[in-house]
Amino acid sequence: MNIVILAAGQGKRMNSALPKVLHPLGGKALLAHVLTAARHLQPQRLCVVHGHGGEVVRAALDAPDLVWALQEPQLGTGHAVQQALPALDASAAATLVLYGDVPLIKVETLSSLVAAAGDGMALLTAELADPTGYGRIVRDAHGTVQRIVEQKDADAREQAIREINTGIMVLPTAHLAAWLGALSNNNAQGEYYLTDLVAQAVAHGVAVRTVTVGDVWETAGVNSKTQLAELERVLQRRIADSLMAEGVRLADSARLDVRGDLRCGRDVFIDVNCVFEGDVVLGEGVEIGPNCVVKDAQIGAGTKVAAFSHIDRATVGCAAAIGPYARLRPGSELGNDVHIGNFVEIKNTRIADHSKANHLAYVGDAIIGQRVNIGAGTITCNYDGVNKHQTIIEDDAFIGSDTQLVAPVTVGRGATLGAGTTLTHDAPAEALTLSRVRQTTLSGWKRPQKKSVK
Amino acid sequence: MNIVILAAGQGKRMNSALPKVLHPLGGKALLAHVLTAARHLQPQRLCVVHGHGGEVVRAALDAPDLVWALQEPQLGTGHAVQQALPALDASAAATLVLYGDVPLIKVETLSSLVAAAGDGMALLTAELADPTGYGRIVRDAHGTVQRIVEQKDADAREQAIREINTGIMVLPTAHLAAWLGALSNNNAQGEYYLTDLVAQAVAHGVAVRTVTVGDVWETAGVNSKTQLAELERVLQRRIADSLMAEGVRLADSARLDVRGDLRCGRDVFIDVNCVFEGDVVLGEGVEIGPNCVVKDAQIGAGTKVAAFSHIDRATVGCAAAIGPYARLRPGSELGNDVHIGNFVEIKNTRIADHSKANHLAYVGDAIIGQRVNIGAGTITCNYDGVNKHQTIIEDDAFIGSDTQLVAPVTVGRGATLGAGTTLTHDAPAEALTLSRVRQTTLSGWKRPQKKSVK
Amino acid sequence: MNIVILAAGQGKRMNSALPKVLHPLGGKALLAHVLTAARHLQPQRLCVVHGHGGEVVRAALDAPDLVWALQEPQLGTGHAVQQALPALDASAAATLVLYGDVPLIKVETLSSLVAAAGDGMALLTAELADPTGYGRIVRDAHGTVQRIVEQKDADAREQAIREINTGIMVLPTAHLAAWLGALSNNNAQGEYYLTDLVAQAVAHGVAVRTVTVGDVWETAGVNSKTQLAELERVLQRRIADSLMAEGVRLADSARLDVRGDLRCGRDVFIDVNCVFEGDVVLGEGVEIGPNCVVKDAQIGAGTKVAAFSHIDRATVGCAAAIGPYARLRPGSELGNDVHIGNFVEIKNTRIADHSKANHLAYVGDAIIGQRVNIGAGTITCNYDGVNKHQTIIEDDAFIGSDTQLVAPVTVGRGATLGAGTTLTHDAPAEALTLSRVRQTTLSGWKRPQKKSVK
Repeated sequence: MNIVILAAGQGKRMNSALPKVLHPLGGKALLAHVLTAARHLQPQRLCVVHGHGGEVVRAALDAPDLVWALQEPQLGTGHAVQQALPALDASAAATLVLYGDVPLIKVETLSSLVAAAGDGMALLTAELADPTGYGRIVRDAHGTVQRIVEQKDADAREQAIREINTGIMVLPTAHLAAWLGALSNNNAQGEYYLTDLVAQAVAHGVAVRTVTVGDVWETAGVNSKTQLAELERVLQRRIADSLMAEGVRLADSARLDVRGDLRCGRDVFIDVNCVFEGDVVLGEGVEIGPNCVVKDAQIGAGTKVAAFSHIDRATVGCAAAIGPYARLRPGSELGNDVHIGNFVEIKNTRIADHSKANHLAYVGDAIIGQRVNIGAGTITCNYDGVNKHQTIIEDDAFIGSDTQLVAPVTVGRGATLGAGTTLTHDAPAEALTLSRVRQTTLSGWKRPQKKSVK
Repeated sequence: MNIVILAAGQGKRMNSALPKVLHPLGGKALLAHVLTAARHLQPQRLCVVHGHGGEVVRAALDAPDLVWALQEPQLGTGHAVQQALPALDASAAATLVLYGDVPLIKVETLSSLVAAAGDGMALLTAELADPTGYGRIVRDAHGTVQRIVEQKDADAREQAIREINTGIMVLPTAHLAAWLGALSNNNAQGEYYLTDLVAQAVAHGVAVRTVTVGDVWETAGVNSKTQLAELERVLQRRIADSLMAEGVRLADSARLDVRGDLRCGRDVFIDVNCVFEGDVVLGEGVEIGPNCVVKDAQIGAGTKVAAFSHIDRATVGCAAAIGPYARLRPGSELGNDVHIGNFVEIKNTRIADHSKANHLAYVGDAIIGQRVNIGAGTITCNYDGVNKHQTIIEDDAFIGSDTQLVAPVTVGRGATLGAGTTLTHDAPAEALTLSRVRQTTLSGWKRPQKKSVK
Repeated sequence: MNIVILAAGQGKRMNSALPKVLHPLGGKALLAHVLTAARHLQPQRLCVVHGHGGEVVRAALDAPDLVWALQEPQLGTGHAVQQALPALDASAAATLVLYGDVPLIKVETLSSLVAAAGDGMALLTAELADPTGYGRIVRDAHGTVQRIVEQKDADAREQAIREINTGIMVLPTAHLAAWLGALSNNNAQGEYYLTDLVAQAVAHGVAVRTVTVGDVWETAGVNSKTQLAELERVLQRRIADSLMAEGVRLADSARLDVRGDLRCGRDVFIDVNCVFEGDVVLGEGVEIGPNCVVKDAQIGAGTKVAAFSHIDRATVGCAAAIGPYARLRPGSELGNDVHIGNFVEIKNTRIADHSKANHLAYVGDAIIGQRVNIGAGTITCNYDGVNKHQTIIEDDAFIGSDTQLVAPVTVGRGATLGAGTTLTHDAPAEALTLSRVRQTTLSGWKRPQKKSVK
């Protein structure tokens, strides 16, 4: 089989500098969704017809299995497929035509369509409650497809037909060159239309079969940001349904956004309004509180992530407690039973089992042992303005509140740092290290007076 | 009256380690909702039939007024009620059968059903637009119930019946033992069905009356996490409607989650996407900003809670200003006109009227007087690694920024602490206390150079 | 044209201390929406009839172009317009009657209605699927309006009429005094009804024309907080549709709240659950992450605002990076390529291009130069308990972590402050300034022991 994906449209109604087929849906370009479906069908040739902004599209999505055909100028869908002709395998019986802006088509629907085509032509149709504006499928008394009639050409009886052409079709490759060559642009737009191939098939006695799509959104195209937002919700609802079927409990299936791949163990609970991006794996029984953002992360079984947490390219062990308001930045690797609390930022840091940083802290470029307690307000001074340096805190250390660890520096096993310490040299194990000035009281001192404002 | 609640089903489609009837809806187990409705009817006996995971269910919800009957193996709804028989009061005229996975049934519906039963039998029915799959209520020409016909046994005329059996019914206790004993399991599943009692009632000349439920969700069961999510939304919409009727202004009634009991004074405003858990009381005119989480809290009249605040087991006085990004942890007791600002965590602390902690601070295990100003970055060092200690700050004290209060420690009335002070001993009243090193400048010093990376 | 806005209703069902017409919709009082529409029509006289809580309404919305007429007691809509009579321009042909609690009426609908009226009367009508409860428009065989029949007086044929009276109408000013004077209150409520003017017009041979509203929500009134919440969603959906048409990409058009005026450049992306208040301008390509709150702000092209950011009366330059968890308070003016990171609060501060404050900091009342690096935990001590003081940090300065800048204080160009410094005097340019105590280790020291709890 050949697959041709038409992706040359400019998408003026998108009102965007980005080519239409690169707009993201579920975190992935529209065209990437179509490519994924197409690849599942294992075509001999997979050709993308590009036009406007074509180089950007190619740069974003190029791959060894793709052939790119340029359509310039753009003279209609028939003309587009014609540009792809040289790239196709003439020996492949069927050529499937897809659209780069129709992203949610299902593989099983396409498989049915290809099977239906046999050695002929097959149209994917849809039944619409209100077919106004679409080309209707006209059949004879035996139900055989005769032609597609456009809205403006349809008489009253034809306008009543609710089965419409979706544009997705399988064409017999053997006839393709001849049929495309015979297309005329003698119409209002002066374009060459793929739909006119139906008449040619009928004229040549080639069977035109149909498959009717189950869910209309499969063939919905994106021509505006409103339509993009509508399909985003369709996609998200499908993802939510699939997660719930696998045993995930969602507080509100309409307030979940998954932009990538979210895999969940049993009895995962996801509270309202969470956003997942990239590849996320949640172990059995993980609980994600409301309003969390989780990207490219692995979270171990039984861990609870509380409200307002932000996790990006991090791994968390089992039975850990994260948040609320915890931020795990790239390179955070947390062990089991680690506690990261409110207003704490972790970056490029390994933290071993049972350690805690529960309050207002910045821990970056560090290696933290087991059972370490990092006090409120602790800051690893990892950056000297030009270079990053490492902080090492060994097992069982206790870091007093508001301590600055001027890296590179090591806190030894079981060491204690006094509150407010500026640590510029290594702290020995099992001892108390601090930098402190005795407090003094100035009793003659007067509080500032309110200045008069002129 | 007796009430029997059938709660033995395993709920395989829930895909969960938790027994189905323990899954939470609005923060409370499904079965707990049914128990609440049942108790409103003040039955003589309230019997729960448990089976799979039964001990977990019992441990979670046991109470002195409950009798637990074990159904093992599980041979159908009729068999389930049979297990409850020994626990019932034979002198009670009516026995009401409820389901542990049908959580939103209303007390008034059940009252109507019991009243309708009289000395006979009563079925709760529902009118469905699409009754496919449900048992239909077959009536004679006078409208008298003749029997319930299951989907697979229904002829075309019966399939057109839109009134279906919900399973909730009132049975005449006097007949119960005999009727249940006469049930047969001669059917496809080999189970004993409660619905077969209808035929027995008709055969014995006992009247079978019906009540049709007003809202279909009242009788909706939970068999999957999708259905659980659907009923969660039904429940939340009901709660939102009820709050709005009482005068609460909601920015979006579809983005409110109440998991427990939320009582509001007049003119409360709740912005989008807030979550309330446990018992929460909001005084007149309280405003809750977007994305807040509030659990087991009392908030006084006129207080404004700004976006992203997280309040758990805390009380707040009147006309206070909380947040954005304020976290009040258990044991926080705030007076009137207290201000808690961004990135501030309060735990187990009393703060008297007119005091403020507006920026990045951790205040734990403390008693704060009136009109105290707690500067940015202040930290109560309440934990020495094993014990928690108390900090006392008396009225009118001014705590300079980035101060560490090493507890146990007291700051006297009207005292001032200089910025950056590590306070290890009590600070006397009305004086300035500080621990400070004079600043020095190293003018020969060179900034670090960028290291080459190999 | 005269316009009379009826705004005297108490709104008991609102259950509120606030007069009904002052309840906010999209951040603006209901009556303010009606006034905006009215002013677009440039009436000679614009009269608001107020009653209950009238002084509060007037205080909130008074303007030089408004005349206020008091209706006390309130004896019906006809009586209300009668109170406005003295304020009207008798020479204006048409008098348009609007309602202070019908906020979403469109200017173009009103223009059509005024045009339809000509020198006669015009009614705005609506076609309802279920017209129960509304006054029906009764027409003769030629389609000429005969009268309005109320629900309780309608016979079966009239009850089947689906065209209803919305209450919005244009009256011929010349007849107004006479017709209103002839109204009777001989009805169940004992009130004088505007709708009775239709019969008078017919009796006097004055044409009664109609315009049917396109969207029923245009004429929806607010009588309860449930209806207020419903119209809020209608308004927000309209705003979302309009933004998307202009090229804004919305992750979920149902989870956007705009309470004011949001203007966006091309290819702006707004993630789920954001709230915009007041006047907000987002430059081309700006991205707003999930759960942000933005009020009265200007954000330059290409800037990314990450999740959980809170921006209020601030300006941000181009290509800046804000958040997550960044708070910009009033008076924040940020240049291009400025980075403000997590748990950082900026207030009344100018920050020049390329400067960064990425972690846990409070910067208030400051002027920050270019390429300045503000370390984690930095705090400007701007408040001495009574006065606010300014901090100046010149270009290329490097502020070490956990530094306190005791204002008024200046850090010179290219200066470096050591971590943990309490800066009480100006820091010279190009040098290292710090206040530091050498760290010491107490090796004989023993960690605290767990105290027994009695």
